Amino acid sequence: MKNIKMLNEQIIGRTNANLSEFDFDTGVFSKNTIEYDKLDKFYASYGITTHHPINFNFKHSSMAGSYFLGNCYIGRSIVYKSDVRGDELKRKGDILDAKNPLPLLKDETIAITYSLLYKTLVHSNSHNPETPEEFTIRNTVSAHYANIHGSTIAGCFLGAFSTVDLMNLHSCIIGEFSYIQTGELFHKKIDPGIVWIKSNDFEFKYNLPANILSKYIGVNRSFQPRGIIYEFVKNFEPEYEEIFKLVNFDGVAAPESSAVNRYSVIKGNTKIGENVLVSQRAYLENAEMGDGSNAQENTYIINSKLTGLNVTAHGGKIINADMGLKIFVGFNSFLYGKEYARLSVGKGCIVMPHTIIDIEKPLSIPDNHLVWGIIQCEEDLRFNSICLDELSKAEDILNIGEMTFKGSGKVFIKSFSDRIGHILEGNGAFFDGENERGHAQDDQNISFNTIQPYNSGENKGIYPSIRIKP
Amino acid sequence: MKNIKMLNEQIIGRTNANLSEFDFDTGVFSKNTIEYDKLDKFYASYGITTHHPINFNFKHSSMAGSYFLGNCYIGRSIVYKSDVRGDELKRKGDILDAKNPLPLLKDETIAITYSLLYKTLVHSNSHNPETPEEFTIRNTVSAHYANIHGSTIAGCFLGAFSTVDLMNLHSCIIGEFSYIQTGELFHKKIDPGIVWIKSNDFEFKYNLPANILSKYIGVNRSFQPRGIIYEFVKNFEPEYEEIFKLVNFDGVAAPESSAVNRYSVIKGNTKIGENVLVSQRAYLENAEMGDGSNAQENTYIINSKLTGLNVTAHGGKIINADMGLKIFVGFNSFLYGKEYARLSVGKGCIVMPHTIIDIEKPLSIPDNHLVWGIIQCEEDLRFNSICLDELSKAEDILNIGEMTFKGSGKVFIKSFSDRIGHILEGNGAFFDGENERGHAQDDQNISFNTIQPYNSGENKGIYPSIRIKP
Repeated sequence: MKNIKMLNEQIIGRTNANLSEFDFDTGVFSKNTIEYDKLDKFYASYGITTHHPINFNFKHSSMAGSYFLGNCYIGRSIVYKSDVRGDELKRKGDILDAKNPLPLLKDETIAITYSLLYKTLVHSNSHNPETPEEFTIRNTVSAHYANIHGSTIAGCFLGAFSTVDLMNLHSCIIGEFSYIQTGELFHKKIDPGIVWIKSNDFEFKYNLPANILSKYIGVNRSFQPRGIIYEFVKNFEPEYEEIFKLVNFDGVAAPESSAVNRYSVIKGNTKIGENVLVSQRAYLENAEMGDGSNAQENTYIINSKLTGLNVTAHGGKIINADMGLKIFVGFNSFLYGKEYARLSVGKGCIVMPHTIIDIEKPLSIPDNHLVWGIIQCEEDLRFNSICLDELSKAEDILNIGEMTFKGSGKVFIKSFSDRIGHILEGNGAFFDGENERGHAQDDQNISFNTIQPYNSGENKGIYPSIRIKP
Repeated sequence: MKNIKMLNEQIIGRTNANLSEFDFDTGVFSKNTIEYDKLDKFYASYGITTHHPINFNFKHSSMAGSYFLGNCYIGRSIVYKSDVRGDELKRKGDILDAKNPLPLLKDETIAITYSLLYKTLVHSNSHNPETPEEFTIRNTVSAHYANIHGSTIAGCFLGAFSTVDLMNLHSCIIGEFSYIQTGELFHKKIDPGIVWIKSNDFEFKYNLPANILSKYIGVNRSFQPRGIIYEFVKNFEPEYEEIFKLVNFDGVAAPESSAVNRYSVIKGNTKIGENVLVSQRAYLENAEMGDGSNAQENTYIINSKLTGLNVTAHGGKIINADMGLKIFVGFNSFLYGKEYARLSVGKGCIVMPHTIIDIEKPLSIPDNHLVWGIIQCEEDLRFNSICLDELSKAEDILNIGEMTFKGSGKVFIKSFSDRIGHILEGNGAFFDGENERGHAQDDQNISFNTIQPYNSGENKGIYPSIRIKP
């Protein structure tokens, strides 16, 4: 165990060096989070397919319970129960930015060094034109259920259930349950519960009220999560144990055009339509997945119907809900209907990332609405939603409740629709049996190779050096 | 599948080139043996511990169901359900031959290239002073349950249940159920059922009668095994399925000084003493393993008692037998007592490799005897055993039944005792809680990492390139 403790100290030291201006000690989180005896208890795995890059390079790291796909370099890091999904990495010759068309000189690699990722989701569609060949995560500590979504990061602390999306962060602290998509961010401290999207053409900003947020996701003095959402997730953890015990697992019946990851939990009367993607660590119980829908990593879809072409982004939770056609449910959203109080969401709606809907009476959200914030009853909709048509008229500043929108509503909606389209496309929602393949088709037949660390001596918990190539 | 078929053709071509003088086509065996749909069905694994070298290098090979430990290079080979156990590989600076004390210039590696090993056991204590840094298995086809025991091999065909022991073979054909330990062998064809040990000081030679042998192990025209011993082993194959399904498996209770491999099958009322080694793919049912005993790969110990310090070499089978103290049961021996006809073997006996004892009435073998051949009743003992004291008097030629012994009986016995001592020592049978560690202590706490091949496309069944270092 000696070396893994030293490794943790190194990670803390490097992250703290980046964050010195904030007088913030990542060691408080790390030391209260890592249970050393668990670091040699769970195996890691990497996926082998003919449709994805295969290039794994693991050095002096601890990776208990984590999963890797694509080109991944993990060096001197602790990556615990995390999913590192490199299936959208760019290839040699690809062009990142049409305005500045520099082709990649080699295949892109996810490179995680001197970092602690704790139950973190890393997805690979990076957008940093400065280092297009390397999707960097360096000197970073990431807390429970954070999402690093295509974001290069150096010297950051990401709070529990936070998301950093398609951007580049340097020496930042992101508060718990905050969602940030602002292109670049340097030396900033972001408060908890901020949902902030900013581009050249628009800005969306909302701050979840601290008193309500802390009920759903708060942290204690050592940055450990607590609250309804954390308890909800924790509650389901034992459900995953069985599927990780078996080397191979046939999983459930699904159409040939759909992929149901063998490390997802599928229970009850769950139906999988065509072109459906169910990712690693998704939880489906009595879920109807309409054609072209997806359930990404760490999503929960329970007693719910997704009509079709529904996107459930990483960490999205949909419980007791009827979801119309082509709804986007953003990262870590918590749609918490009850058996006695179902939630109904109309077609074409966009549920912003990190939205909480927790109702005690049935609630219907009309078609084509943008929804954000915390909604506990029908009245809350007034200050937490807007019809897309109305939003598209916005040209300057729009204030609704605690939300501020600046810029062109039209461009904002178009940019969102485009992204949803790209996600559906990438996930293979439009596969016609021949063309338009995506993850739903390519993520079938993944062979999982398990890896385990030294389980005695000074290197207990550390993995040997592993190098896998095609 | 295309590439794996090509790979098989390459192996056949290279092996045949070595064996051209014999007008022997290894393709007849290979093509009738390999079931291509199984080559992507079973995972391979490699062991990680702090007590063994860790250096795996797998390239363009198919390795379904195989297990690797130590320094192993597998290139352009098909290694199916085989155990490659490199825990006795020599290290840099070791001296192989006291008479010619050249230290190894680097750590020794098992290097398997252009070979097909089918359910073969490879153990690593090599004895070829010409290539001390490389334990080579090249251009070789090895049939069901053959043992390659510390023998470097190039261009050979090893028949079903054959053993090549501590030697160097080049362009040889070894018949089924033959055991060869003759230092070196070039361009020879060995008939089935030969047990042949030859050194500068002695020679032991016995030929199992063809008509009886074929009842126990024969092969058909395409060199596929048949007979009582093959049926016996085949019968137990389903017993292993369950233990391979689980990633981790706690196994059975055993003293701290003993190692029970998690890929062994332990059933019924089995007791494990101190300093006991139970290897990968051993099968124990109602077995009493006395202190310092071992059950090596592919052994079966059923309804039997081993008093202590018993060596059961790779593939040895002991059924309904009471074994005294410090008995050596050689490779692939088949001691087949019955419930109504138990076998009793006295202390200090040496059961020669490839001995068959198949009795219908109870049989006792006295203490300190050497036993060989096929024994079906008490009368057979007369021509298939000798008291060690008597053997030690032999100085020239000794003929007993079909067995011929030449040279010094004393040196033969001493050399055998020394080897048994080394095996017990290597296996940790003399561990006192502090000193004299061996496999029984060091093979505990192995972490097994599983690896799987591509499961679609041209490379279906082939594993990606894998490189593991400490």
